[in-house]
Amino acid sequence: MDLGLLYSGGKDSTLAALLLADFYDVTLVTAHFGVTDDWKNARDTAEATGFDFEAVELDHDAAVTAVERMVEDGYPRNGIQHVHLHALETVAAMGFDAIADGTRRDDRVPTVSRAQAQSLEDRHDIDYIVPLSGFGRGAVDRLVAATLDVESGPSDEIRKADYEAELRTLLAREHGAETIDEVFPAHEQTYVTGFTERR
Amino acid sequence: MDLGLLYSGGKDSTLAALLLADFYDVTLVTAHFGVTDDWKNARDTAEATGFDFEAVELDHDAAVTAVERMVEDGYPRNGIQHVHLHALETVAAMGFDAIADGTRRDDRVPTVSRAQAQSLEDRHDIDYIVPLSGFGRGAVDRLVAATLDVESGPSDEIRKADYEAELRTLLAREHGAETIDEVFPAHEQTYVTGFTERR
Repeated sequence: MDLGLLYSGGKDSTLAALLLADFYDVTLVTAHFGVTDDWKNARDTAEATGFDFEAVELDHDAAVTAVERMVEDGYPRNGIQHVHLHALETVAAMGFDAIADGTRRDDRVPTVSRAQAQSLEDRHDIDYIVPLSGFGRGAVDRLVAATLDVESGPSDEIRKADYEAELRTLLAREHGAETIDEVFPAHEQTYVTGFTERR
Repeated sequence: MDLGLLYSGGKDSTLAALLLADFYDVTLVTAHFGVTDDWKNARDTAEATGFDFEAVELDHDAAVTAVERMVEDGYPRNGIQHVHLHALETVAAMGFDAIADGTRRDDRVPTVSRAQAQSLEDRHDIDYIVPLSGFGRGAVDRLVAATLDVESGPSDEIRKADYEAELRTLLAREHGAETIDEVFPAHEQTYVTGFTERR
């Protein structure tokens, strides 16, 4: 069965790929808005870990709506949630038998409710799988330490390919660089460079 | 890392074991009340699939409380939930680094909330993992068909080792055989006999 996994190059979505690799033909799919070339970081991780890779361009309107919401709200949650749901719809339409993402049990955003998951599955006739949905933060950290080589640091220093970098760029372009710090609280990001030797 | 997986010999908990097998040293743990020898069915499946196995006896009071609740309620949900939480506490105290169960996204019972999961992890200093929590019914059925040989049929005809068989026996013993049909709606059970040839 062919599975498309929404992929950022970070530890969560890479671990999700490993969990599914024995059961599906996994393609890592990085969704982007064509705003930056950050998606190429995810392609590099896909190469380093031996997974198939595809990039897919999202509807620019989704980025515009997300940035508007983030500025209105003063925090990124609803904007990122909007883009994530749009990205899932986009990957669901690519012809895979199943799609997946790297959301963890303890993530506050994005979240996909059971009803949203069922709707996605029914409308696209696919399975939508969240392999880390039953793993807490501690379990994920321990599995990552055992399997992946990871760089980590502040969001603006880490090579990565999630929506956040592009949304930050758009935010700065349209509302000024100072808006980034107003909307996004400082937090750590991760970028996977390959497998540990033990793997 | 040593992981104890609460195990019934059915398709869900067997698939959960396969999902975790690359990442943990998995021991299948079948919890029982010493009422019947049904736990030996799970031991047979553990042998057929090559997993380590342990049986653990639960507190008989949990079965008594569960049966009382089921008779009061007229349906099994709260009684089974009570036994499942007691079984998780029991396996959590066995010394594993992590514990798991075979609950699926679409299960209505048992359910363990995020807060209950976090409490279990904090009190026992373990990870509690629900590997099928992000898999819907369709995805589970397709993965099972690809990996496991399964018998299925009505609850009273299928070899299995979940709590239900023992609770049904206790219910009949204390409240009469006719109570079983009053409390338990007819439903299909599964029992795993081994891997498919393709696996």
